[in-house]
Amino acid sequence: MLNIEHIGIAVKSLDVSVPLFENLLNTVCYKTEEVESEAVRTAFFKQGQTKVELLESTSEAGVIAKFIERKGEGMHHIAFEVDDIYSEMKRLQAEGFVLLNDAPKDGADNKLVCFLHPKSTNGLLVELCQEKK
Amino acid sequence: MLNIEHIGIAVKSLDVSVPLFENLLNTVCYKTEEVESEAVRTAFFKQGQTKVELLESTSEAGVIAKFIERKGEGMHHIAFEVDDIYSEMKRLQAEGFVLLNDAPKDGADNKLVCFLHPKSTNGLLVELCQEKK
Repeated sequence: MLNIEHIGIAVKSLDVSVPLFENLLNTVCYKTEEVESEAVRTAFFKQGQTKVELLESTSEAGVIAKFIERKGEGMHHIAFEVDDIYSEMKRLQAEGFVLLNDAPKDGADNKLVCFLHPKSTNGLLVELCQEKK
Repeated sequence: MLNIEHIGIAVKSLDVSVPLFENLLNTVCYKTEEVESEAVRTAFFKQGQTKVELLESTSEAGVIAKFIERKGEGMHHIAFEVDDIYSEMKRLQAEGFVLLNDAPKDGADNKLVCFLHPKSTNGLLVELCQEKK
């Protein structure tokens, strides 16, 4: 694993939370993007090497809507950049971590992503991501 | 605010979680430190520009013990490095954010720190931190 690529934060409404995070981080949101397969709209902020990604559900049955129902708004996942997502998935599986998808899938921001099951990582939802080439 | 300095993760036991995160992050824990005033033992890992800080409570009444009781193990806070914690606290207060301490206090890792109330930040516990000079 390389650096922390981004922190994902579940919010009810980007309309409310984008201006809030612009004030908090003292920087402007540089991109919004919808990821239909995940039923989310995302908004990105950059702080040094790391991004903050706000996630709003586009569906009541979406993972972000369900997360907020269970835990409230707040930190949702932590994403680590990797050089080679396939070899990192293999390494983690061999270490006993549980992958939530067998093959990398398309994520926001031109990335291939894979999530690890929080039960194998102290309740932490971990995302691996690799820039698509 | 500058970069994300670290991500704080609440865990029940460093003895269990340090080896787990060493496997997960494929790097060794480079420091452990007790912060008596916060009733925590901490363990640090470095990933690029950002650190991961595991937090174990040293007291049943401590904030980390209470957090785990309420929400389970997992992401606890996100810490942003700032140049001048006093001016950043003033700026955020003027923007309507609620500070959890009026003056910076001593944190782990040779830092002055201040926390923002999650109610003013979408449920996110935000820490400002500045290296002590």
